[in-house]
Order: sequence, then C-alpha cells, then structure tokens
Amino acid sequence: MKCVGVLGGGQLARMLALAGHPLGVRLRVFDPTADAPAGAVAEHVRADWGDAGAIERFCDGLDAATLEFESVPIATARAVAARVRLAPSADALAATQDRLAEKELARRLGIETAGYAKIDRAEDIAAAWGRTGGRAVLKQRTMGYDGRGQAVVASPQDTLLAWESGGRYPSVLEKFVTFERELSLVAARSTAGETAAYPLVENVHREGMLRRTLAPAPGVQAEVAAQAASIAEHILRELDYVGVITLEFFEKEGRLLLNEIAPRVHNSGHWSIEGSQTSQFENHLRAVLGWPLGSTRPVGCSALLNIIGTLPDTTGILGLPDTHLHLYGKEPRRGRKLGHVTARADDRTTLENRIRALEQMIEGAATPRDTEGGP
Amino acid sequence: MKCVGVLGGGQLARMLALAGHPLGVRLRVFDPTADAPAGAVAEHVRADWGDAGAIERFCDGLDAATLEFESVPIATARAVAARVRLAPSADALAATQDRLAEKELARRLGIETAGYAKIDRAEDIAAAWGRTGGRAVLKQRTMGYDGRGQAVVASPQDTLLAWESGGRYPSVLEKFVTFERELSLVAARSTAGETAAYPLVENVHREGMLRRTLAPAPGVQAEVAAQAASIAEHILRELDYVGVITLEFFEKEGRLLLNEIAPRVHNSGHWSIEGSQTSQFENHLRAVLGWPLGSTRPVGCSALLNIIGTLPDTTGILGLPDTHLHLYGKEPRRGRKLGHVTARADDRTTLENRIRALEQMIEGAATPRDTEGGP
Repeated sequence: MKCVGVLGGGQLARMLALAGHPLGVRLRVFDPTADAPAGAVAEHVRADWGDAGAIERFCDGLDAATLEFESVPIATARAVAARVRLAPSADALAATQDRLAEKELARRLGIETAGYAKIDRAEDIAAAWGRTGGRAVLKQRTMGYDGRGQAVVASPQDTLLAWESGGRYPSVLEKFVTFERELSLVAARSTAGETAAYPLVENVHREGMLRRTLAPAPGVQAEVAAQAASIAEHILRELDYVGVITLEFFEKEGRLLLNEIAPRVHNSGHWSIEGSQTSQFENHLRAVLGWPLGSTRPVGCSALLNIIGTLPDTTGILGLPDTHLHLYGKEPRRGRKLGHVTARADDRTTLENRIRALEQMIEGAATPRDTEGGP
Repeated sequence: MKCVGVLGGGQLARMLALAGHPLGVRLRVFDPTADAPAGAVAEHVRADWGDAGAIERFCDGLDAATLEFESVPIATARAVAARVRLAPSADALAATQDRLAEKELARRLGIETAGYAKIDRAEDIAAAWGRTGGRAVLKQRTMGYDGRGQAVVASPQDTLLAWESGGRYPSVLEKFVTFERELSLVAARSTAGETAAYPLVENVHREGMLRRTLAPAPGVQAEVAAQAASIAEHILRELDYVGVITLEFFEKEGRLLLNEIAPRVHNSGHWSIEGSQTSQFENHLRAVLGWPLGSTRPVGCSALLNIIGTLPDTTGILGLPDTHLHLYGKEPRRGRKLGHVTARADDRTTLENRIRALEQMIEGAATPRDTEGGP
C-alpha cells in the first residue's frame, strides 16, 4: 500500500483517488475547505496553506506528494518538498504558475507563443502596447483559472482601466491571436524519465471555461502532432518534470502557439478515463511513484462535456447509450464545474449524435436556472 | 446525492463504491470485520449481523439497500428490508442462498441442472445415490463459496464420511457432470423491470476458485447464447429480481446446465470495468436505484486473472501494455482473493499474448510462497 499526498482536494484529487484505490494507492489531500470533493474518497487534512503543523501531519508517512492545482502557494510547496518528494517539483510549479515565467520558458526553448509584455506598473502599459498592438488580452500572472483574471482590451486606456479595476496585479499583456482552434496535449513523465503522451484533443471554451473536448482531435496534421510532441519533450526535460503536464495550444495556419502550461492532470484529459487504455489520473500516479506508464492509446473516439452551474437531469443522461457520468459531489453554483459526461464511440458519426443529444440535455438544463441565479 | 447500503464490505462492495462516486452515489457498508476492503471508500458500520441497533443505524437515510454476498443471514436481510427497499429482495436472497432452493427453482422453471437429491440426515444418503449414481459432488446447501463445503464422492460410504467430517450440514448430492467448459452470465434487472445481460464468459476454476475469465467466451453458438438469455429472463421474472444476478453454467454438447445462481455482482464480471461499455458495478447501482441500465456491449475482448494468496510483482504487471490492476487492499493469505488483473485488447491474438505473460507473473509469484505457507 502506497500513500500519496495531494495539495488540493477538488475534483482532480477526487479522480486521482478513485484511480489510486485499485492500484493499492491511497491518497491524503490537503485542502482548507470543509467539503472538498476528494474528502469522500481520501483522507482529508483540512488546514490553511500556511499551517506548519498541518503540513507536518500531511507529510507524515507519505511515499510521494503532488498537487492538483497550480495556485498552491509556493511556500507550502517548498515546505512539503523539504519533507517528502514532491512531483512536480516546487521549481517546476514556480515556472508554470506564473504566466510570465511560462512565456519566458517558452522563449528560452524556442517555442512560439503570442507576443507579450509584462505589466508590473501603470507606466509599463504604453511600452507593452508597442509590442502587442491592435487588440490584446490582459492576464494576471498568477491565480487565474477558468478565464478569471483576464480581460480583452483594445487600447492602452482600456488596459489601464482593466488593470486598475482588476486589482493592479502583476500581469502580462498578450497579443490577441486569431486562431482556428484550441488544442491541448496531456503528457506524462515518470521519476525514471519515461514519457508518454495522449493524442492532441480539440477544446471549445465559452465564457473562459472548457465546455467540450473531442479526443482525439479530428484532422490533426502529422506535422502538428509532431510539433506538439516535440514541445512537450522539451518542456518536460527542461523542468525535469515528474507527473502529468498539460499544454494548451492555439492552432493557426498549420502550426501551434503555446498558450498555457498546467502542471497537473487537466479537464481536457478527463475523457481518458473511458476513452483511453490508461487514464491521465492513473498515469499521473504511476509517474509520481516511478512505476511504468500505461498506454495512452485511445479506445475509439470520445467527447467530454462539462456540467457547469446547474445539474441536468442525470437520469436522462444515463438513458443515453455509451455515456459516462462523473459528478464531483459539489453543490450547484453559477459558473462552478459540477461534473462531466464522457461519450465514447467506435466511430465519429455515432459520437456526433451522442454529443448533440448530450448538449441539449446539459445546456437545456443550465440556461434557464443560470439566468435566474443572476451574476 | 444518493446513499445505498450494502450488506457486506468486501471487494465487491469496494468496487461498487468506486463505481458509485462518479454517479453521485455514496455507499454505506455493513460488515463485522475491522479491515473490510470497502471501508477505504465507503462509510463502514462495523457490527455483528444480529445487532439490531447497528441495523437501525445502517438503514437510517438510505435510498436503497443491497448485498454483496449471498450468505448474509436471512434475518438480517429481513430486518433491513423492513426499513428500506432491499434489492434483491429477502425472498430472492432466500431462494439463491440455498443450493436446494436453487435447484427447485430451476426444476419449477424447466431449467436443466445436474441430477440431485437432498441430504438432511445420514439415512438420506442411500436413496440419494439411487438418483445420482456413479460419481457425485456433496455440497452444503448454504454458506459455501470458492469450493468450500464441497467434496467429490464415489460411493455412499464416501458420502457418509464426507458428510460427517464436513459437519453434518444439510446438503445436496449432485451427479458429477462431465462438461466441456464453464460459462457464466451476468445480467441485471432494474426496479422498472428493464433487463440487460453481458455476453457469456468462459471461466476456468482451480481448487474451487476462479482463476481466469475470457470475455466474451470464444465460439459461443447462437443457440447457447439464446438459451442463457432465456434462462436469465425466466429467473429474473420469477424472483421479481432487482439488481445484478450471475448464473453459472456447465456447457455440455451444445446445451447449458445451470450450476449455480449468485444474487450479486460476480468475480466473472470484473472484466466489465474496462472491457464493456458499462461495468457490472455501475449497472447494479443503476438497477437498484431505478435508473436506466447502461450498455453491456463489450469493448474488444478481455481476460480477467485473479490474484490469489500472494501478491505478484505489481510493477511488472503495470509494465505490460493494456493491463489493468485491481487490488482490494487485503493482507496476503493463502487462498485469499487479493485482486485481479484485466487485460483488454482489440483482437484475440494480442489478448492471448497478454494472458501468457500475466499468468507467468501471477502464478510464478504464487507458487513458491503458497507452498511455504502450507495448508
């Protein structure tokens, strides 16, 4: 029996725990919230991120520690890493929890990104516009997720306003990229240096949140797949990375621009539970424990749809053939990810039909009540 | 969020719990043992089967109750059924936990079994031999599993000896059947009367314990599949059964003899976690809660191998492609089911190669230490 600690006890930790039990791996999660979704299937150390005694208790007897979200305070990560092997490392976390550090890592490795400039002070804005021009996206360097801490801006005046109303956080201004689609790659590297990658998947976001993933992404050119694999290899090696990593890309005219790095299992990889030979959750645990990685080969084709804000009629969803429901045990709340549904099929036509039926059920449920709730 | 109670907290309850969490179903298990495998993933009411206060606590707030082994004391089942909907019902349990009742059910429905006679007293043995003749198997009517409480006998004298040394339990004497192979069928019926069945699978037992299942069973004739489906339909209807049921058959000259009925999810159905569109565990919960049943269609072909007595080198197993490890969190002990491995493949040839490699790893590990332990 192995015990792995996870910083964060949300749905990602919950699905890691569900993947761990059959492998003889128990999880212990560290999370300040009482109703952390992983608490139902893992031991839960409930404490604030700075609670040294709790960190001590959390680390006691662990075989390894990992994390489920990139905004873990770096001091907590370092305190854990001083007691138990943390994978990914605190350095890898530091490099990927800050959008500016991410961009600079990409530049160092010759990986193309959108043009960008940093904004620490109001005075930086004018110079930043010199580099991005036209239309841009202002993004907080840290703590952003699901589109929070981001604003599309069209002028230096706009940018100043957004920066001030957002709280004057250290930010990056990114050139607005007109892309054909968003793709992501989930890859893993083990303590032994073994690597594996799932196929590129196609993502659709709305209001900053992932709504749908198609796995594998349809019609990926061989050169694009090769470019993604090469970028992943470079980043994994450069960071001496251990665990699952996720790279988000924009696809534009047959090439990829790196948009974001998530040092963890990822929403766009949830399809792998049913849709691939080994799930991203199992592979993350295998990587962190130094076990051989499992096959990332897809089994047929899959679509993942997120359940956001409102629970649909889950009995109706279960009545559709070949669909798999995953609820996270969270109370419904506007803009909250409550679960997801994966449809797996042997061919694309069957899959498209399932998606249409599922979208009606999920979005039909979400729209009226979301509106009632108000912002 | 639904809560389902399970009588018994072994590996079957554990796998039910793992299937339940993504569906928004939490399990509460009733089990007298401290280290019940399901305790890691479900609430555990630890008490003796006759503890009325504990039964009360166990039932409190449940949406439904079910069971994971057929030897649940019938009084406990009835006490639970008086408080919450029990599925399968106490009557269905009574009919399937007693080998004689099972045979009489089969006879009533015109389902062929091995010839049999009941033995309540020593004086019944001579008459029983008149009906079975030649060579027979003496089986306790209740509480037998994994070949316990069974003896192959060749004469009335043999039978008397076996019956007396076994503890003089009410038994059945069954005609020894020379069959070509053992097959089993896992089927489900929901509270709404919807039924579904997995394909017939082929089982290999050794020392009374299941060692290997091939799913689907290779080379099943259409008439045999139809016979199995028809038998299942009759039994499910006759018992007004709700939940997953498992029928074990002998195949002999193109027809099936019913050997045993298990009123529960079954070891020979574990392959369905990866090898079919919906696992037997998920379908049992769907059936018990009155939700639509999920597709029982296999995804490629699968083999299940049990890990018995000794843990093999699990890292080696994880290093084989397309294999899935399931450990139950139990301490190794001779003759104890500690886990299983499922290999899934898109074709039989690949599967055969995986099976050979797995058998070497699993049985290579088991042999020397099993012998050391001694009986």
